[in-house]
Amino acid sequence: MALKTIYYSNGSVKLVDQTALPVKLKYLTCRDVKSLWEAIKRLSIRGAPALGAAAAYGVILGCKSFKGSTRASFDKHITKVCEYIATSRPTAVNLFYALTRMKGILDKHSVSSVSQIKVLLKKEADCIYEEDRVVCRQMGQHGARLIKKGDSVLTICNTGSLATVDYGTAVGVFYAAHEAKKKFKVYACETRPLLQGARLNAWELTRAKIDTTLICDSMAASLMKEGKISAVYAGADRIASNGDTANKIGTYSLAVLAKFHKIPFYIVAPLSTFDRKINSGKGIPIEQRNKDEVIFFQKQITAPRNVKVYNPAFDVTPAKLITGIVTEAGILYPPFNKNIKKVFVRN
Amino acid sequence: MALKTIYYSNGSVKLVDQTALPVKLKYLTCRDVKSLWEAIKRLSIRGAPALGAAAAYGVILGCKSFKGSTRASFDKHITKVCEYIATSRPTAVNLFYALTRMKGILDKHSVSSVSQIKVLLKKEADCIYEEDRVVCRQMGQHGARLIKKGDSVLTICNTGSLATVDYGTAVGVFYAAHEAKKKFKVYACETRPLLQGARLNAWELTRAKIDTTLICDSMAASLMKEGKISAVYAGADRIASNGDTANKIGTYSLAVLAKFHKIPFYIVAPLSTFDRKINSGKGIPIEQRNKDEVIFFQKQITAPRNVKVYNPAFDVTPAKLITGIVTEAGILYPPFNKNIKKVFVRN
Repeated sequence: MALKTIYYSNGSVKLVDQTALPVKLKYLTCRDVKSLWEAIKRLSIRGAPALGAAAAYGVILGCKSFKGSTRASFDKHITKVCEYIATSRPTAVNLFYALTRMKGILDKHSVSSVSQIKVLLKKEADCIYEEDRVVCRQMGQHGARLIKKGDSVLTICNTGSLATVDYGTAVGVFYAAHEAKKKFKVYACETRPLLQGARLNAWELTRAKIDTTLICDSMAASLMKEGKISAVYAGADRIASNGDTANKIGTYSLAVLAKFHKIPFYIVAPLSTFDRKINSGKGIPIEQRNKDEVIFFQKQITAPRNVKVYNPAFDVTPAKLITGIVTEAGILYPPFNKNIKKVFVRN
Repeated sequence: MALKTIYYSNGSVKLVDQTALPVKLKYLTCRDVKSLWEAIKRLSIRGAPALGAAAAYGVILGCKSFKGSTRASFDKHITKVCEYIATSRPTAVNLFYALTRMKGILDKHSVSSVSQIKVLLKKEADCIYEEDRVVCRQMGQHGARLIKKGDSVLTICNTGSLATVDYGTAVGVFYAAHEAKKKFKVYACETRPLLQGARLNAWELTRAKIDTTLICDSMAASLMKEGKISAVYAGADRIASNGDTANKIGTYSLAVLAKFHKIPFYIVAPLSTFDRKINSGKGIPIEQRNKDEVIFFQKQITAPRNVKVYNPAFDVTPAKLITGIVTEAGILYPPFNKNIKKVFVRN
């Protein structure tokens, strides 16, 4: 099941080119920050936790291009690298979380030499990477307890190995339940416009031999009405202090539909996805993407070229529609404001 | 604006090949019943009212292949033709409505000769065709009164000229409002899996110079949350006696979302779309289509080939989620059971 989505080796970042799936499983090699930035931008790598690891290793690639000798100039250089990586995508907070941790190493070890700090940065990046592996498995264990024999769960986008370092958030929960030999079915929303649900999630789930049915996003409501969905599980790109959650466009729609049909709706996300600096979903910037993602399929146009297009990559689900948030520290329930604060004091 | 979607000429049925849009506007020529059946099956022509006209002219094509001489054998032949056409698609009742009218001509004129009855059948088909033109304009006039200056309306699938003989149901309302010089915006759901919203509705609407923004189906909820949608307008494939309405998959989802966001939700459909023989949406057969529609885009596979797929072409919106039904006889409001009965007594 385990698929290495991203890893650092021999001075390069290797990552699965997710734009080529499900047709081809191939790795891209990024030897410098620019090629990594471009891989993030065009979604060769995506998924909030995976973006954290990518950003951290991006900083390590940035170390390679440092030409100076003093710590001051090194710190200036790395700060610029971090600022550059931060421009790749605006919504997933894990990317900024990882960059903040990397910059924290500079501050914490201000007297170390350039060669020493390079080693410390690499250690921190490896640490972010390893934490993701551990945290995903912990979320899986907590979340799997929610899944009962005979359940049919609905999910959106890709939240498996490909969205993290190697296991997943919402799909990590399904992996853990499957490993625990629970019998359940997954309905995977294809997730327009870029079909991460069809191309990536369905690919991962069928590969893991989990009973999976692909649907168009517009079909979820019908399944709920027919009583075929036991619960909805989604990932997150950023969670505000009050529990409002930004995730792939279409998640809010599923949350409203779940509420209407009295179906539990869970978010699965590590604590690194929480942005405690913002009070509510209103503070989360939503990335608007190119209209060509909607009007073209590969090189084939599927709509009149002159039509206007609205193409936000994410939406925000208000906390009041969320039943629980599965984290590595356990499942958080309402009132989220209080319980999120509590988990951060404890951890 | 007027585009002839289908017409009968020189012993053939000519129809816009809707699978080629928006790239090419080209007409198919169907010279026999089989080629028309195939055109319906592969959705070269689709849209409930257009299917009514297609079925009626299909019967006329069927007349051409009659080799016998007696009325009894002619009636048997035409009955078989009707049965064959009826197998093309199961949900849109207009197709069955048209066939019932054509068979009604046989019963009504049981003493006419074969050559006489052929003329009468052609007259009836022309009548079904002409009625659709008139009825669409009447619906447009009634519905346009609902659209206020500055409105942003949301719609799904294609319900314009291409879905009818030449004007439309929900989009007919937009045409009428546009002709009345009202300023409003349309958000068009792309309508997966076959993108009738992107390929056909956005094409028609931009061609008519109506301010149109294309969205993926999963984005509708976000727009509603942001207060950007004034009302939803959808067509119908079959309406039960109680107002439950079958329409393109995704319509039910929009109805639930509209209810949650307190946005009016209208159906626009001619009286020929009502199936008074069935009491509720439970009696409406829902066509399940091929999984390849979801996992392929043209020849490009977009999901693992071995994944299961759920691909219903339609869903049923319960009457309680519908604000009003715009028909040629005016706008029907709840209680639908009573008001639908009333309109049929009157008309």
